[in-house]
This record gives sequence, C-alpha cells and structure tokens, in this order.
Amino acid sequence: MTDSTSRPIGVFDSGVGGLTVLSALRDRFPAESYVYLGDTARLPYGTKSAATVQRYAINAASHLAHHEIKLLIVACNTASSFALDELVVRSPVPVVGVVEPGARAAVATGAHRIAVIGTEGTVRSNAYQRALAGLAPTVEVDAVACPLFVPLAEEGWGDHPVTDEVARHYLAPLLDRGVETVILGCTHYPLLLPSLQRVVGVNVRLVDSATSVADTVASDHGDLLNSGGHRGTVRLELTDASDRFLRITRTILGADPEHLEVIDIDQA
Amino acid sequence: MTDSTSRPIGVFDSGVGGLTVLSALRDRFPAESYVYLGDTARLPYGTKSAATVQRYAINAASHLAHHEIKLLIVACNTASSFALDELVVRSPVPVVGVVEPGARAAVATGAHRIAVIGTEGTVRSNAYQRALAGLAPTVEVDAVACPLFVPLAEEGWGDHPVTDEVARHYLAPLLDRGVETVILGCTHYPLLLPSLQRVVGVNVRLVDSATSVADTVASDHGDLLNSGGHRGTVRLELTDASDRFLRITRTILGADPEHLEVIDIDQA
Repeated sequence: MTDSTSRPIGVFDSGVGGLTVLSALRDRFPAESYVYLGDTARLPYGTKSAATVQRYAINAASHLAHHEIKLLIVACNTASSFALDELVVRSPVPVVGVVEPGARAAVATGAHRIAVIGTEGTVRSNAYQRALAGLAPTVEVDAVACPLFVPLAEEGWGDHPVTDEVARHYLAPLLDRGVETVILGCTHYPLLLPSLQRVVGVNVRLVDSATSVADTVASDHGDLLNSGGHRGTVRLELTDASDRFLRITRTILGADPEHLEVIDIDQA
Repeated sequence: MTDSTSRPIGVFDSGVGGLTVLSALRDRFPAESYVYLGDTARLPYGTKSAATVQRYAINAASHLAHHEIKLLIVACNTASSFALDELVVRSPVPVVGVVEPGARAAVATGAHRIAVIGTEGTVRSNAYQRALAGLAPTVEVDAVACPLFVPLAEEGWGDHPVTDEVARHYLAPLLDRGVETVILGCTHYPLLLPSLQRVVGVNVRLVDSATSVADTVASDHGDLLNSGGHRGTVRLELTDASDRFLRITRTILGADPEHLEVIDIDQA
C-alpha cells in the first residue's frame, strides 16, 4: 500500500482563480504534490443554481478521487458554499473548503462588523453568514454579490478606473455602515486588490481564504503532510483550455504551468 | 406522417440572450411554434475553445432534434461561428446561424467600413470576417472582442455610465478608424443599446442579427412556414434556472415565459 503522505493533494475550482489557493498551499507545503482541476468548460459556477453547482462539484471530486489524492481542497467559494456537506459525505478523504477558513481569518481581525463579498451563488447560499455566526455570534455581518468582479479580474483590470467605479457601486453601502473587515469570498478577487483597497481605504481589512486554507490544512490535517524532502510536482487539469484561461493561469502563477492537460469530465 | 409545417422551429443559444432572436422570429412568424434551448448550465460559450463549443452545440442540436423540429436556428454567435458547418452536416433539418444574416444586414447599410464586436470566441473564429469578405470584398472590416459586455448586459447596466466607459475603451479605436456600421455580434448586446449608441454617436449604425435572421428564414425557408392560423406556442428549456437567468429572461420577453422546463443534456 502506498504511504498515504506521498499521495497528492487535490485542489478543485470552477476555473483558474483557485490557483491563488494552490499557490498559497505550495508556498507553505512545498514538499507536497498537487493535482489541480479547473472546470473551465462549465465555469462560472457563481451565477448558477445550487443543484447545478452540486452536480458539477460531485463530478469533479469523483474525477480527483481517481488520482488517489489524500486530501481534497475545494478552492471554489461557490462550490464550498453549495456542495461542501455533500462532498464531505461522499469523499473517501478529508475535505477542506474555503468558507470556514475565510470566516476564521476575518474573525481573527477582531472586527465588529464584517462583510463578505462574492458571487450571487455564494451570497445566496448564506454559507459565510452561517460560518461567521457560529464563530462570533455578536459580529454584525453583511453580504453583497458583486457579479462584475470576476469578469473584471479576467479582463486583467485589477487596477483600473472602471473597476474602481464598479467597486464603489457595490461597496459604498458597506462603507456607509462602517464595515471593518471584508472577506474576498471568491478566488478571483485577490486579482482586484489594487482597485479594491483604493476604494475601501486603508482602514478596512481585506482578507482572502488562500492563506487561511493553508492554516487549516496545517492545523487539522498535519498528519497527512510530508515532513520534508524534494519539492513536489503540480499537475494542472482543465476541462477547457482557451487562450483566455491560459493567459489568466500565467498571470496567477507568474509562469507557464509545468504540467497541463485538457480533460473531459462531463461523462464521468 | 405529421405535416412538416406544423412542427416547431428549434432555437438554440448558450443562454437566454438568444431570446432576442426568438422574439424577432415570433413577431414575424406568430403562427409558428418554437422550442428554445438555452444551455445556461454551461454558458458562457464566448470564452471557451472551439472544441468545447462544438461539443456543446452538437449536444444541444441533438437534444432539439428529439422535439421533431423542422428548422434549427443557432441564435448563439459563438456557436454559429465555431460549429455551424458541423451542425449543417449532422442536422436532419435546415440550419440557420446568425453570422451570415448579420453580415448581410451590415452590408445592406452601404457602409464602406464595418466592424463586428462580439465574444473572444466569435472574433477569433473569423466567421464574420469571412462572411463579410464573401458578400462585399471591398469593404474594410475590423473585429473587436468585448468580454465585459455580456456581464454588463446581465447586470442590467445597458444604460449606465460604467458601460459607457467600457464601451469607449473597446470602441474608440474603431471610431478613430471611421467605422460606419457596427455588427452587434452577440445576442446580449442589444440589451446595451442605450450606452452603445451614446458612445458611437448617431452617425454610426448598430445592426443586430435578430431581424435579419427572420429575413433569412422568410427568404430561404418560406416553404417550411405555416401560412396562417392560431398563434403558436413557445416552449423554453434551460439547463440551469438560477434566479439570475430567470430575471434576464423576464427582461427580454417583457413577461414570464409561458412554458419553462429545466433539463439535463450533459449525458445526451
């Protein structure tokens, strides 16, 4: 039997935004190997119904199980929000989503008023709202869907006057209510940090899940990790590889992916 | 054997934007019945590769064939651009895309300089460029991808300062080169008409495919049409029915759809 620590960690996202989570994991656990599955042929998940997102997420997790992963990271906020419970029940290995780690990181800032921004699906699911209520019942929580942020991030407009104007439109009501910490509840949003921080000002903390997912892996699943050794490998699998997705992949990784394959999981 | 004229017309789009084409068809041919398939679970097509779009389009056409349609309208510009030839070969009934009718309508304006705006896929496919070159070889043609226009249309920002600014970004180079007619090469773009017309000015003609598709059906497939009788029915099938898509559906139709069903065609 294969030593379980030598098996890869599976990371799943609707697209390539979850590579921000993969990068944070790799920085923290360089001796691990990773299989990243981006369901680019069916993205975005954020505008679609709970039923569709659950179906896609189960399909993706089942594909990653064939890679003999030891741990499943659901890097997609919408999938974490709508499908995590179902994935935990079905998965033969532990599952870590991004919602609980993001909520923990936000509560750790000591803020009394926290907002989560994300896709329509993530906001509608109430997953962050429930997680925050469980961790810090007295904290005031707002949630706002920002549907234009993913397209703006994919357009490469993370530091752009149009993004500033769109961000003011979505975030002004939160600022008026005195928000102190904003959770970037979508893996694409860190790509918009220049515009977002400019709009919310220096006194509002922006937290994303990438770093806190690594914290959760270390604290809750340290027994599964390699204690050292060579740098692991990364295998990147996408269900569609248009020029657009490859361009965004290079932006996030800062380099070409070392191993990329286009796969079909529709019939899985 | 069923009289062929009594069979429905099938209309296919990646989402609900193609309802603009359905509405134009219904205005022109009210005695027809229609089955509209919107592949909302897998949209958008415009950012994805030719291979993925072809696979999805064939899958959708095969589903519509089960409804015994007499004519297939590919209302999606990206699918028309990447998959029309393949669909024509495979379909047991005539197929009409939106590219050729849109190109004809643009040439009919008498412009010497025509631009097509659309998704990245539509522009990259060169389908409009080829159609225009075939119809009017001396016309100068530009093509510009406008990836933020679909999200802006879906956000309901068709008459909004942010859309004006984004439109200026995409269209200024065309205006500098003296474009006279712009083809709205995506079924969502008519929803942005107020902002687009403001940005291009009153001297630039904006043409969309919806009306010209009806012209093509009348001229090329008049023998298949009902000559009169009762108003036909519309059956709307979506592969995902999130609140977002239903909201956009109501915006385009100006009413709730008369018959809506959510279907799964992944495994077809």
